[in-house]
Amino acid sequence: MNTNLPTALLDLESHLRETTLLSSTRGLLEWDERTKMPLQGGPYRAEQIALLSGMIHQRASDARIGDWLGELEQLPLAEDRHSLHGCLVQQTRRNYEKAIKLPKSLVEEITRTTVLGQQSWVEAREHDDFAAFAPILEKIVGLKIQQAEALGYDATPYDALLDEYEPGETTSNVTRILADLREQLVPLVAAITDSANQPDSSILTRGYAADQQQQFGSRVAGLVGFDFQRGRLDTTHHPFCTDLGPHDCRITTRYDEGFFPAAFFGILHEAGHGFYELGMPDDWYGLPPGSCTSLGIHESQSRFWENMVGRGRPFWQWCLPLAAEAFPESFADLSVDQVYFAVNSVKPSLIRVEADEVTYNLHIIIRFELEQELISGQLAVSDLPDAWREKYEQYLGITPPNDADGVLQDIHWSGGMFGYFPTYALGNLYAAQFLAAMRAELGNMDQLVEQGDFQPLHDWLAKHIHQHAQRYSAAELVERATGEGLSHLPLVDYLREKLAPLYQLPASSS
Amino acid sequence: MNTNLPTALLDLESHLRETTLLSSTRGLLEWDERTKMPLQGGPYRAEQIALLSGMIHQRASDARIGDWLGELEQLPLAEDRHSLHGCLVQQTRRNYEKAIKLPKSLVEEITRTTVLGQQSWVEAREHDDFAAFAPILEKIVGLKIQQAEALGYDATPYDALLDEYEPGETTSNVTRILADLREQLVPLVAAITDSANQPDSSILTRGYAADQQQQFGSRVAGLVGFDFQRGRLDTTHHPFCTDLGPHDCRITTRYDEGFFPAAFFGILHEAGHGFYELGMPDDWYGLPPGSCTSLGIHESQSRFWENMVGRGRPFWQWCLPLAAEAFPESFADLSVDQVYFAVNSVKPSLIRVEADEVTYNLHIIIRFELEQELISGQLAVSDLPDAWREKYEQYLGITPPNDADGVLQDIHWSGGMFGYFPTYALGNLYAAQFLAAMRAELGNMDQLVEQGDFQPLHDWLAKHIHQHAQRYSAAELVERATGEGLSHLPLVDYLREKLAPLYQLPASSS
Repeated sequence: MNTNLPTALLDLESHLRETTLLSSTRGLLEWDERTKMPLQGGPYRAEQIALLSGMIHQRASDARIGDWLGELEQLPLAEDRHSLHGCLVQQTRRNYEKAIKLPKSLVEEITRTTVLGQQSWVEAREHDDFAAFAPILEKIVGLKIQQAEALGYDATPYDALLDEYEPGETTSNVTRILADLREQLVPLVAAITDSANQPDSSILTRGYAADQQQQFGSRVAGLVGFDFQRGRLDTTHHPFCTDLGPHDCRITTRYDEGFFPAAFFGILHEAGHGFYELGMPDDWYGLPPGSCTSLGIHESQSRFWENMVGRGRPFWQWCLPLAAEAFPESFADLSVDQVYFAVNSVKPSLIRVEADEVTYNLHIIIRFELEQELISGQLAVSDLPDAWREKYEQYLGITPPNDADGVLQDIHWSGGMFGYFPTYALGNLYAAQFLAAMRAELGNMDQLVEQGDFQPLHDWLAKHIHQHAQRYSAAELVERATGEGLSHLPLVDYLREKLAPLYQLPASSS
Repeated sequence: MNTNLPTALLDLESHLRETTLLSSTRGLLEWDERTKMPLQGGPYRAEQIALLSGMIHQRASDARIGDWLGELEQLPLAEDRHSLHGCLVQQTRRNYEKAIKLPKSLVEEITRTTVLGQQSWVEAREHDDFAAFAPILEKIVGLKIQQAEALGYDATPYDALLDEYEPGETTSNVTRILADLREQLVPLVAAITDSANQPDSSILTRGYAADQQQQFGSRVAGLVGFDFQRGRLDTTHHPFCTDLGPHDCRITTRYDEGFFPAAFFGILHEAGHGFYELGMPDDWYGLPPGSCTSLGIHESQSRFWENMVGRGRPFWQWCLPLAAEAFPESFADLSVDQVYFAVNSVKPSLIRVEADEVTYNLHIIIRFELEQELISGQLAVSDLPDAWREKYEQYLGITPPNDADGVLQDIHWSGGMFGYFPTYALGNLYAAQFLAAMRAELGNMDQLVEQGDFQPLHDWLAKHIHQHAQRYSAAELVERATGEGLSHLPLVDYLREKLAPLYQLPASSS
């Protein structure tokens, strides 16, 4: 311990570290619930999680934090967010202000209503009954507007909600970028759909026993760089990645024995999240200098490994022999080109989580546009299903046959997570920007991947992204790492460069 | 909620229930550490556990508990320990007095010293170096004497330590019973050793793949009655059972691919613990009317299923076809009599945890006698290895060749767990008493087990033991269930009845 540091700093750190011990413990309660807990353990687990959540919220809004920050903000050490202590003070201020701005009654009502909302959503989706879900969704939208008003915003209430997930980003900026992206992707998808050259996706629908997939996925994750001394892979219904300590990152997946890509790319995706979690400074675990700077940046790391690396031709040059070894009957007769084309199959579809690398962004843009309209009051909840169908027709050229596979497909809105969706698309955009910069800096990235030498990629990500944690905002990280601000162009270029040769697209569409 | 109940009762309950939420959460941190946690997660996990332990201790010694109890003890509802509220008040008084009698400094020093003690023990055992372990063991013995003095006792300091694990039991009573037991078992073991009729134990050392054992063990545990909707089975180094909620009981085992009984009987043992945990009143989970009454009673439940049921001939009449189905190459050629004799092999051996049903008690008696002498000051720590060897020669007829497989084999003393060992032998004694009473009451127990119909056994245990939790002490439970007090005779009779025919023992030895 550096005894020259001000007492207020030591007290603040100690307070935050204890809160992190509790929140990581809650993380274990949640991880276990989703991977291991016996069926009937649910109700008591909910009580355990609720108790810890209450304790954590109380600690996050403890008035002493305000006192400590007040003292520290007078000192030079707090001036520079890019320094460890500056980041600690400034980001804790941000978190503290958010915590105290929200009235306890509102927090509790949002929690209560979204729990009911999710239950109602499960029912409504099962019975394809949007009308049954509409009343509580209206209530949730109303509460989220109240939340935005309490938090405050510059231009529009949606800014406040977006800021929860993508700190510092603005609705107007994201709107502009995603509109630009949409204008490029809609014709690209149409050209791909019209192409006579289509992959044989059926080659990835042969048999893959779940335990074989688990072994193979673990092996590849390990070779790609996931450290199983600092993490685990488990099975779950809705895959996720969670960190339970500075050296304890849990990734999860689910296995479809008739469709190889689901678990395999899922594991690469979650491992990408894991690399970020395990790559932030250990000794600041859970505090701002050791926490992710935005969900978009987090998603960029998962998308980078899943798509930019995992769906690349060099990766399959390296990986196909391993796959053929693990699944001789399903892979031994396939060529790299066959697998490469099949894993890059692009096809408009109804369900976001099953969408390919191109159309995925359109699924997100639709949600982003609709949720903004809901929060601004331009769109009534009762008009949502029609608006949804219109956008799917307009952007993807398909018509959802029902609401269950349409507007009811995602859990997010029922859980009050307005402002979350755009971070998925931002992740894709950031990832493409990082890829371009990394490719230029490394010079021989494809050869490295072909040889299974992923360390230089990790080094680049550690240097430009992971180590900085919250010392730089997402926008700053992108600017520093790539020399440019957020832009839709690198993603569009990346997709065109990959897909134009595969689908033999006419020059006009690229 | 019954609003006619006194506020003090509601407040006390609410306080205890919240503490239970925290202690069961700590239970998950510990379960995960021992079954799932990645290697490098250890140091942070220790911090999480330490934080929760501090919070739990603070809550247990909260002065408001004394106030609530003071009020409630004036009321009729607190008078009868056999009632739910009487049990709650009286047992909480007991726990609270213990918590406040121990000075915080002593608790902390015991915690610190036993952590170091366990580390020192691991080293010492590895290097067979008792002298290196002796200084810290001396310190631990001194601290445990201080603890006994702080807690208070009637006759001897060891009473206070024993009471931690076997509430209400006395050193003099246990001494008398175990001495009686020893006098019967020593000649029985000698007669068995001298017998010309010995089992072929090698039939249980064929190959058993770990995952097959896991599947088979789970299947049998399920058929015997372990509810996998309310529990799980996982792999660990040092098997245990833990409850993480009223409907969430985790059992664990380890697999030896060359020795069938280790995991199989281990699973039955832990399932027996699990039946007790899951059998106590759900709505009082973690509070005295929903917690185990003593470790001896807990152990009686595990030993009952492991030995009294699992090593019985009727059990193998039922189970052998299942084993032959799961492991055709290892079991299909075996007869019930062969397996029955092999699983009841009795042979003096060095290591307690590997000992058979008879000699196990002698291992315990040796430890019980020695630890009493340590606490009373009759035996110096430096003389412990010699005393150990003498007793092994005297009671088991074997001489430990070194301290690693002798006095250093158990973790208990290094962890300060003086008073724990006798509960293992008490468990065997209670189990035999319960068995005799159950057998008499059911009338057709062997036929039921032969048919795989275990429900009547569960019903008996639920009625006479599980449902009562702490509303009855161990002594009261035994008296009520069997009509007699704690005695060595039922265990001796049970062992003789089983083993005399198998080993064709001369009448003189029985």
